Amino acid sequence: MKFRRSERLIDITHYLLEHPRQLVPLTFFAERYGSAKSSISEDLAIVKETFEQRGIGTLQTVPGAAGGVKYFPRVNEHEARQFIANLCDQLENPERLLPGEYLYIMDLLGNPQIVHQVGKLIASAYAGAEIDAVMTVATKGIPIAHAIAAHLNVPVVVVRRDSKVTEGPTVSINYVSGSTKRIQTMVLAKRSLKEGSKVLLVDDFMKAGGTINGMISLLAEFNATVAGIAVLVEAEYNEERLVEDYISLMKLKDVDIRQSAIKVVEGNYFTKNISFL
Amino acid sequence: MKFRRSERLIDITHYLLEHPRQLVPLTFFAERYGSAKSSISEDLAIVKETFEQRGIGTLQTVPGAAGGVKYFPRVNEHEARQFIANLCDQLENPERLLPGEYLYIMDLLGNPQIVHQVGKLIASAYAGAEIDAVMTVATKGIPIAHAIAAHLNVPVVVVRRDSKVTEGPTVSINYVSGSTKRIQTMVLAKRSLKEGSKVLLVDDFMKAGGTINGMISLLAEFNATVAGIAVLVEAEYNEERLVEDYISLMKLKDVDIRQSAIKVVEGNYFTKNISFL
Repeated sequence: MKFRRSERLIDITHYLLEHPRQLVPLTFFAERYGSAKSSISEDLAIVKETFEQRGIGTLQTVPGAAGGVKYFPRVNEHEARQFIANLCDQLENPERLLPGEYLYIMDLLGNPQIVHQVGKLIASAYAGAEIDAVMTVATKGIPIAHAIAAHLNVPVVVVRRDSKVTEGPTVSINYVSGSTKRIQTMVLAKRSLKEGSKVLLVDDFMKAGGTINGMISLLAEFNATVAGIAVLVEAEYNEERLVEDYISLMKLKDVDIRQSAIKVVEGNYFTKNISFL
Repeated sequence: MKFRRSERLIDITHYLLEHPRQLVPLTFFAERYGSAKSSISEDLAIVKETFEQRGIGTLQTVPGAAGGVKYFPRVNEHEARQFIANLCDQLENPERLLPGEYLYIMDLLGNPQIVHQVGKLIASAYAGAEIDAVMTVATKGIPIAHAIAAHLNVPVVVVRRDSKVTEGPTVSINYVSGSTKRIQTMVLAKRSLKEGSKVLLVDDFMKAGGTINGMISLLAEFNATVAGIAVLVEAEYNEERLVEDYISLMKLKDVDIRQSAIKVVEGNYFTKNISFL
């Protein structure tokens, strides 16, 4: 069965979107469509150009016998700025205010389109990094971690506050929560992370950085290393933060309970050296 | 700026994949590409044909002034069978055995490609249903719930075992766990589910159905109704189950601790009236 170019372009687009950062040999597509490799090369040139123009991502061609093509999700700067500005607006809604100056954000974390785009933005920032896994702490970070991992094509590892029978043997550590200075526990199933992994740490919210710092201590128990740190929202914090090099999409500047006012601005995302489309 | 057909097909494919079950007016694409609506209609006919042939999904065209096109994720039966058979094999690995006859499945739930496909299979089964939200209980069901919700384009609602300060006012219920007969608690943030919603209930594992039944009781507090029930794995259960009409991808037939043997077969997925591609 022969495929026309139009059909190939549609199927290649779908296939690459579902297999980011994975080397796909040209012969795979050539056999899939019964086409010459030269035709596939032309298809891929069209896909690459369109992906870049439309802010979808980019294709990297690896030459040689073991070569092929890799799709990297990437965003264009203008769209990323619009998306984050819109998220900031949503976060400033005073109805989100909860006692203790907490903000309700479960609706944002439960919205698949928002979570998907957050994942794409953060994955784009680590497009060039070597990452073996994305780690987060249950439960609010899980959707973001999965959205990032889907774009990086790596597994998600979920740390818990307590151990469960369905996890098997675990490694646990104690750490000091950054802002409240309380001793807390973190638990990770032993088999869930390979020794020596390079891990992207992710959370929905960071203030002093205690939770992230706890995950860093946990990594040490697995001889694993930090490949990056990314949070959806960081809070303004005047004391010394426990975590230095991180990416945040938004920054919570101020919460005024009496005025029912929340001030949210862009995080440090655009100050990082991200190669946008 | 004018777009060639090849570029339009790639961009339309990407756009539809990111906006399932959403009515996109033909004029949206016509303006996006500076093309005649007749050209867009031809593009969509090619996309529809290829999506159906390649097991991606289907397009539904809604005629008239308020019309447009909707993409529905769907799977083809052969691929779905292969995928589930492969999952069953993976689940039968005796290394998954934990004390108490529990199985370790965090690696499967942490694999974004597996989770994505599980979500697509379950969403396909509810392609024709009216669903306003997907609900699950923290924490293992969260990735599956998000994967389903992404394909259905509806929000995820996460029920917890205990309330947290970041959730605001909550509604809580007590329920009887099906197999252990213990009284347990479930908590849901009041603002996380609209009154009267039609909800798809999701979990990673079901034995007697106590957790699902707990979610059903919780729905009643929100005047919400069950739109469907889907689990990744159901366990063989000889007593009367608390839940009747559900979909399962796999069925755990038997766990033999002494022989270190696990028997997993297809769930009831293919006995349901699912319209495959």
